[in-house]
Amino acid sequence: MSSDLMQKVISLCKRRGFVFQSSEIYGGLRSAYDYGPLGVELKRNLMNRWWRDMVHSREDVVGLDASIIMHPRVWQASGHLAGFSDPLVDCKVCKERFRADKATRAAPGEALTLAFADKGRAKVAQALIAEQFGRELDRRGKTLIGAVAGDRGYVCPVCGSPFLSEERQFNLMFRTSLGAVDPMGAVANAIESGEFAGLSGAELRQKLDGLTKDSAVYLRPETAQAMFVQFQNVQQSMAMKVPFGIAQMGKSFRNEITVEHFIFRSCEFEQMEMEFFCEPGTDAEWLEYWCQQRMGWWTRYANEPDRFRLRPHEPDELAHYAKGCYDIEYLYPWGWGELEGIANRTDYDLKKHAESSGSKLEYFDPVKRQRYTPFVIEPAAGATRGVLVYLIDAYREEQVEGAKGTDTRVVLKLHPQLAPIKVAVLPLVKKNGMPEKARAVVEAFFERGINAKYDEQHAIGKRYRRHDEIGTPWCLTIDGETLENDTITIRDRDSMAQRRISIGDAVTEIEGLLRD
Amino acid sequence: MSSDLMQKVISLCKRRGFVFQSSEIYGGLRSAYDYGPLGVELKRNLMNRWWRDMVHSREDVVGLDASIIMHPRVWQASGHLAGFSDPLVDCKVCKERFRADKATRAAPGEALTLAFADKGRAKVAQALIAEQFGRELDRRGKTLIGAVAGDRGYVCPVCGSPFLSEERQFNLMFRTSLGAVDPMGAVANAIESGEFAGLSGAELRQKLDGLTKDSAVYLRPETAQAMFVQFQNVQQSMAMKVPFGIAQMGKSFRNEITVEHFIFRSCEFEQMEMEFFCEPGTDAEWLEYWCQQRMGWWTRYANEPDRFRLRPHEPDELAHYAKGCYDIEYLYPWGWGELEGIANRTDYDLKKHAESSGSKLEYFDPVKRQRYTPFVIEPAAGATRGVLVYLIDAYREEQVEGAKGTDTRVVLKLHPQLAPIKVAVLPLVKKNGMPEKARAVVEAFFERGINAKYDEQHAIGKRYRRHDEIGTPWCLTIDGETLENDTITIRDRDSMAQRRISIGDAVTEIEGLLRD
Repeated sequence: MSSDLMQKVISLCKRRGFVFQSSEIYGGLRSAYDYGPLGVELKRNLMNRWWRDMVHSREDVVGLDASIIMHPRVWQASGHLAGFSDPLVDCKVCKERFRADKATRAAPGEALTLAFADKGRAKVAQALIAEQFGRELDRRGKTLIGAVAGDRGYVCPVCGSPFLSEERQFNLMFRTSLGAVDPMGAVANAIESGEFAGLSGAELRQKLDGLTKDSAVYLRPETAQAMFVQFQNVQQSMAMKVPFGIAQMGKSFRNEITVEHFIFRSCEFEQMEMEFFCEPGTDAEWLEYWCQQRMGWWTRYANEPDRFRLRPHEPDELAHYAKGCYDIEYLYPWGWGELEGIANRTDYDLKKHAESSGSKLEYFDPVKRQRYTPFVIEPAAGATRGVLVYLIDAYREEQVEGAKGTDTRVVLKLHPQLAPIKVAVLPLVKKNGMPEKARAVVEAFFERGINAKYDEQHAIGKRYRRHDEIGTPWCLTIDGETLENDTITIRDRDSMAQRRISIGDAVTEIEGLLRD
Repeated sequence: MSSDLMQKVISLCKRRGFVFQSSEIYGGLRSAYDYGPLGVELKRNLMNRWWRDMVHSREDVVGLDASIIMHPRVWQASGHLAGFSDPLVDCKVCKERFRADKATRAAPGEALTLAFADKGRAKVAQALIAEQFGRELDRRGKTLIGAVAGDRGYVCPVCGSPFLSEERQFNLMFRTSLGAVDPMGAVANAIESGEFAGLSGAELRQKLDGLTKDSAVYLRPETAQAMFVQFQNVQQSMAMKVPFGIAQMGKSFRNEITVEHFIFRSCEFEQMEMEFFCEPGTDAEWLEYWCQQRMGWWTRYANEPDRFRLRPHEPDELAHYAKGCYDIEYLYPWGWGELEGIANRTDYDLKKHAESSGSKLEYFDPVKRQRYTPFVIEPAAGATRGVLVYLIDAYREEQVEGAKGTDTRVVLKLHPQLAPIKVAVLPLVKKNGMPEKARAVVEAFFERGINAKYDEQHAIGKRYRRHDEIGTPWCLTIDGETLENDTITIRDRDSMAQRRISIGDAVTEIEGLLRD
């Protein structure tokens, strides 16, 4: 049922223009997605709502929009260059490359069964293991038996083999080159002039990295660091007083080895992060405050607030610099998973960047007349994950009684403030001046910046269903009675109830409903 | 005066939180900029306005938000992999790397004077030229004479030397690697196993490129290609009828060799592009239509519409696939320069992608019952350039008479719909309940999503000036009279005129002014 729900959501996304696979006509790109006409509206509504609630409606938070490519020393200071990596291993039998920390567990000495897709592949693997590792395994159909788990504690998650490469650290940051330089040209020159001759593997690798290092820059793996690096510029130019926050939305990039669950984990994703700078000693209280705020925010737009929970990190889950951390989790179809993290990052980041850059990243309190490095509470939310959560939360199949018996309607019960299209304007028939009346209503919405849609194709019942499926909260219908007394029907997506209002009140009516 | 104006705008941007240099505490990153608390609001207002006017207010345009990293075959088909490059040359004397097509012109055989920063450097250059090129030049102070221009038609733009490397094509796309691969590891292995031995320079380079090619992906240099690649998904999922457009805003990346004029040309920038698909034969008319629309749009928010012009491309400026193209240019302090390009791209792109992908990127006209590849009109605007244009357009220094004589006020006459802060709410003094009244007004604005700012620091005159300088169109002041009769003053940024309104009307008043 639950994977069924995911399939239905994914299928709706593609069919109705919410989310497409990136570069689909070229076979798609691994875990990259494009937001179609309705998806871009949903994502914009969600992110604009965050900006409005987190920045515009507060005196103590201001915005920032920093570049994606930052100075490489930022990532050195933050620890991402040295430590933002996963342990990678190759299976020497089936060639799968996988994360050691997510591999199938196996106790040392445990008897193993290696499994393959068919007998032929099992035979090939048997021969390869005999030749390369000198181990004769017995084959039973598609499986090989007789192997034993080594000391690592894990085996290949695909075929189950213990014949593995060494672990190597794989940095998740995307690396590229900035400037009119040609790192591969430098490598070519060095090879030609024999500079690599006689070097050991490690020396060779070090020399190679040195040749390409000068121009290396990285795509940010998180938006957060920019708020630390620009702390002083923002505080001073805006004359902000601690406590205050800097908020940023935007793309981040992680070369994830495991991509999963549609837009849940992808290499390119969008974040909504805020760094809240406060006086040391007040940090525990602010962590508590932001946990409540953020839980309140996510549940406000949801149909099923019980599927959200606030989970404190276990001590062994905490990042080494964090004093406390909570995850806001959602009950996805595959189980509880992260949606937002709220961490007490202490003064770790500001101090690290102060140390590395030589700039004083401190605050002088003019009332208490003291100087200190603020502590930071960080509510860091996934915007693309938020889109997925609200799509899952909204998806419903309902049995409805119609003229032709019981029927299933698919309805996306999106919060009206998130819905891509706010109102559909429908002439009952394509004649008798109804299209003209409908278009005038649509124009009135356009003028007020409300995303309305004129729709005249197919029977009215079919049009209602079409708008139920994409989450349009209200349909306005121009019918015969409109021509007599200038009233129209307004139909509610969720209750399907209809009532008549004056055509002149349409915009005010919808504006009022959107505000509730 | 004009470079003076740029300096003033840049200085205001940094001082008041519009634009900071990226990673400034680390010495900055070449031509990368961060938008501060006011800059992010200005940019958002501009881009949201574009979205509202181009997407939400039209039945025939829908949005898209595609991934920045697309399938590499997209760039092969579009021609960017082969052709999106600049010719680069190194000066062998002063080591400058420059674009051949932008270098200092010099007719073959022309007598040259090479110029250096000081005598010492001229001497070093003299010796180097003698040794490496066997040419004895005479030195006169900081210059060398006796060299003659070669056949290339250009010399080094820095020192004037004709001693240059070969031209090489430098692709402007940023390249990175996707997936759990290690291209440099593959290079290291190949070197170790002697695979490069005996290869010529070109062969070596080809082999190197081959080793890293499989995982190579690129940061998009324009948003446009996604609209072609997703043409079919968008058209079908939204049941769009030609003519219709797909619009997208977002970041693009070009590894520009020449970065210039603050945010005018930088390696990371933001675009607002729309591809309008129309029936062949109607394209000339639509090109004309979009030129008028877009000129009207830019000038609508400007103080000096005369500084915008529409310039048709000369035949030799046209891209090989374009049938016609116009630039919307702005008179920047350094002269006329591009702000938006509007091109008739014909059916070039759809046909190229259809050919490369094997997908049919065609449209079936249900009325005329015929199938065709639509032509495309593309209005492609620079969002970051738009921010710069409106900042320049808005910057004013005015002489005003005050109590203490004539004074200069700096005012940013930004269109109210673009202004970062819409309204400042100011208690005359920090007592007598004025702050409480002011905060209640600010809260009322917050509730309506209007970006208001409470400000109580310094004398009222100073606060007015502060808000003039950042473009806040209206200031509301709570004073002694407010406590008596619940009226407040509203001050207009441009005229500096003040009038009293009822405190209860504040929100409606500002909403009305913003709508005009």
